Amino acid sequence: MTVWLVGAGPGDPGLITARGLELIRACDVLVHDRLVAPELVAEAGGLRMPRHGLAQDELNRLLVALGRDRREVVRLKGGDPFVYGRGGEEAIALAEAGVPFGVVPGVSTLAAGPAAAGIPLTHRGVSGGVRVLTGRGESEGETIVVFMGLEAVADVCDRLRAEGVPLSTPAAIVARATLPDQQVAVATLGTLAAAAEGVFGPAVIVVGEVVRVRDRLLQLAEAA
Amino acid sequence: MTVWLVGAGPGDPGLITARGLELIRACDVLVHDRLVAPELVAEAGGLRMPRHGLAQDELNRLLVALGRDRREVVRLKGGDPFVYGRGGEEAIALAEAGVPFGVVPGVSTLAAGPAAAGIPLTHRGVSGGVRVLTGRGESEGETIVVFMGLEAVADVCDRLRAEGVPLSTPAAIVARATLPDQQVAVATLGTLAAAAEGVFGPAVIVVGEVVRVRDRLLQLAEAA
Repeated sequence: MTVWLVGAGPGDPGLITARGLELIRACDVLVHDRLVAPELVAEAGGLRMPRHGLAQDELNRLLVALGRDRREVVRLKGGDPFVYGRGGEEAIALAEAGVPFGVVPGVSTLAAGPAAAGIPLTHRGVSGGVRVLTGRGESEGETIVVFMGLEAVADVCDRLRAEGVPLSTPAAIVARATLPDQQVAVATLGTLAAAAEGVFGPAVIVVGEVVRVRDRLLQLAEAA
Repeated sequence: MTVWLVGAGPGDPGLITARGLELIRACDVLVHDRLVAPELVAEAGGLRMPRHGLAQDELNRLLVALGRDRREVVRLKGGDPFVYGRGGEEAIALAEAGVPFGVVPGVSTLAAGPAAAGIPLTHRGVSGGVRVLTGRGESEGETIVVFMGLEAVADVCDRLRAEGVPLSTPAAIVARATLPDQQVAVATLGTLAAAAEGVFGPAVIVVGEVVRVRDRLLQLAEAA
């Protein structure tokens, strides 16, 4: 009984991950967004439930109930579950209920939308960074992601501090992400450079209050 | 003879797209990054060439030569080709040479790295936006991506202008990205709201000089 939060990708059914497709084919229940490709919904052998019409808290309760009752549940979302997908809220609801869950990332429209029109997010000599926002106007904070930051972690921290990011902001380094020897170091912006010692390999740095979602999930897993 | 620029995803070989895996299995030549999962390289039936040791311009020439000689070439990159992957440079080199190419996006470490550590990029009440940079310190421009911006396109343009983004900055709307009825509107920040009329469905807005890469690719395609 695992609830898998799976990203369906930007639209084209061929752009789901191999793992995501495997889970859809094997699941007992598929709970899917309305805009997910019908070809992917058709791959599900088990019960298919459109999510449409359910508020987020009702959906969370449904996933918990299904996770308790059934063997394998796939919650299929457009794009990526953790990029404007409310996957974090569903993960917390499942962890609070003690229901095992997993996250299978998807190709986000973030890069795949522009790419489909021949537009790279970054291009040497033209753009070296990206800012992502929504049309709704954010009153919330911002997450900072740093590529190729491990070798220059002290510089990165200095730059962010100089921009006004508080030293107490939670921060994490994820090295060799998704591989069996993945390594995670959690700190704050002020202690990140020290925490980076002993971390090696390709790594991504994430700075922002969202790092606390990890702490919350770990606490809930320990309490379960 | 098509050269496919394919994203391998963040590391776990199960996180490549279904389409990407299909192309690897069917290709005549696979040109792969050193850090791509060996399980994916092993899936290639044809010739396998590690990219390691080639400068970007040498690699571009290799892809052009292979594209002219062979039927199907896969250029397999870690992550996503258009997120710090130099896919735009390879696409331009191929278009300049008149070699047909395609881009198959991958799951970027951008979201999948943090996700693998239980950290969502966005989380309601905590983070509503993302900023992506590199440890190298950018002297280049920034690309702005707006989710859920079509309904509020005039507001979005006003906000960006108020932040100092010039009205002449190239901008595009990509609606129903990667689907057969995909729609693209290209304009500038100043004319984007007018260009959005008649565009419908889920859409992503991209603002920045990278939009000119699309124009360049289209010009080259017309000249070919």
